[in-house]
Amino acid sequence: MLSHNQIKFINSLKIKKFRQQHKAFIVEGEKSVNELLASKLITRQLFATTQWIEKNGSRLTAKNVECQEITENELQKVSDLTTPNQVIAIAEIPDANGALPYDSTKMLLALDGIRDPGNLGTIIRTADWFGIETIVCSTGSADVYNPKVVQATMGSFARTNVVYTDLREFLAHLNAGIPVFGALLKGQLLTEKHFTQPGIILIGSESHGISDELIPFINEPIYIPRYADDTKSSYAESLNASIANGIICYEICKQLFKKYF
Amino acid sequence: MLSHNQIKFINSLKIKKFRQQHKAFIVEGEKSVNELLASKLITRQLFATTQWIEKNGSRLTAKNVECQEITENELQKVSDLTTPNQVIAIAEIPDANGALPYDSTKMLLALDGIRDPGNLGTIIRTADWFGIETIVCSTGSADVYNPKVVQATMGSFARTNVVYTDLREFLAHLNAGIPVFGALLKGQLLTEKHFTQPGIILIGSESHGISDELIPFINEPIYIPRYADDTKSSYAESLNASIANGIICYEICKQLFKKYF
Repeated sequence: MLSHNQIKFINSLKIKKFRQQHKAFIVEGEKSVNELLASKLITRQLFATTQWIEKNGSRLTAKNVECQEITENELQKVSDLTTPNQVIAIAEIPDANGALPYDSTKMLLALDGIRDPGNLGTIIRTADWFGIETIVCSTGSADVYNPKVVQATMGSFARTNVVYTDLREFLAHLNAGIPVFGALLKGQLLTEKHFTQPGIILIGSESHGISDELIPFINEPIYIPRYADDTKSSYAESLNASIANGIICYEICKQLFKKYF
Repeated sequence: MLSHNQIKFINSLKIKKFRQQHKAFIVEGEKSVNELLASKLITRQLFATTQWIEKNGSRLTAKNVECQEITENELQKVSDLTTPNQVIAIAEIPDANGALPYDSTKMLLALDGIRDPGNLGTIIRTADWFGIETIVCSTGSADVYNPKVVQATMGSFARTNVVYTDLREFLAHLNAGIPVFGALLKGQLLTEKHFTQPGIILIGSESHGISDELIPFINEPIYIPRYADDTKSSYAESLNASIANGIICYEICKQLFKKYF
């Protein structure tokens, strides 16, 4: 049985201010909670249906995680999902790792003002697929611990390191010679580029693209080719930020990394 | 000034049943309405702020479109956007074109149960970027005329032909030898595939992937390589449907089409 105070507390974590105050965030649903329990992140508490507890009880004992049994109806009162899914966890927000020094043997994503939670979550999920662990977000980006972002990562929130910082400062303090890739209309065709070393992929916001103040840091501008026949009078003007990111990650990783799973 | 009945009518178009009944849908915001007015689609009526009308009045006269002046406050009452943007149009749903016969000189997308409006819109926008005009959706997919889908296409709704049909029937009636590409765990590495002719890209739903009954139609299974170091104990299980679609479109179009804009 969920008390009024518990309902209030869980729902408060849908708001950034309270997540920061309590250093806690919500993880919902079977898949995401499984990924949470398998990760290094600390699970403070679980609220789950009888069905879920019967299936997962032994893992909880092993991890020494407190789990409170609740009904589907109670879950509905605290869930952020349209269709609540058996379990909701309260996890601890880890201490932020710095983004510097940048490990130049690895790819890194830098996100400039991604505000849509679904886009941010999808970008984190894609980064994880391509083996990119560190994602540096500008301070104006959506919060990775927003339940909608956590949900959209499909578990990848537990395997990636998302850092918030002043991107201008971050890019200004990189060592010389680090490639900074960014999609620009005047970039080189992605289909013709040869990538020789890992670097930083800079992705602009959904509505404003890459900020003017960050464009000078791009030393490897990229253009994703657009195909169409001559008969059209107008064309798509741009790709969604998460799609552009997916295509760029795919092409760079294909050229640089030979090991796949 | 918007009448009570006008407000009721516009808001009713957020529901599929009423869109079908009135053969009408909503297009919102400067960019999308511009794309609508530049397209072959029929604009039945416009509601816009003074500011928008002053800027666009001459185009309306040329196109003979009725435009009613409304205030920002009135726009708020009918808008589906968090931040309403100057103009809302009522457009006519065109008569559906059939998906067959399939023109085998062109790429085509087949979407199997994409239910998230944002995903569907993003997929249509990506298709448009890569010069793919025809998108065949299974009957259980989200409705292209849902305002959230229209919005996510960023204008591409006006340049693409989205058809709803029984996908099994559609695939069963293709001529022999037409490539049907689909992402499957046991597919051939996309990075190693050589594409020699256009075909159909089959994309599965966000939650269930490609339906069992459609899998036998895939004659060119694809696997998008996943990269990661050995040190991890778990990996991302899949990519978002719209990201997988973007990467597959990119690689196929890169190999098949030399003309870009």
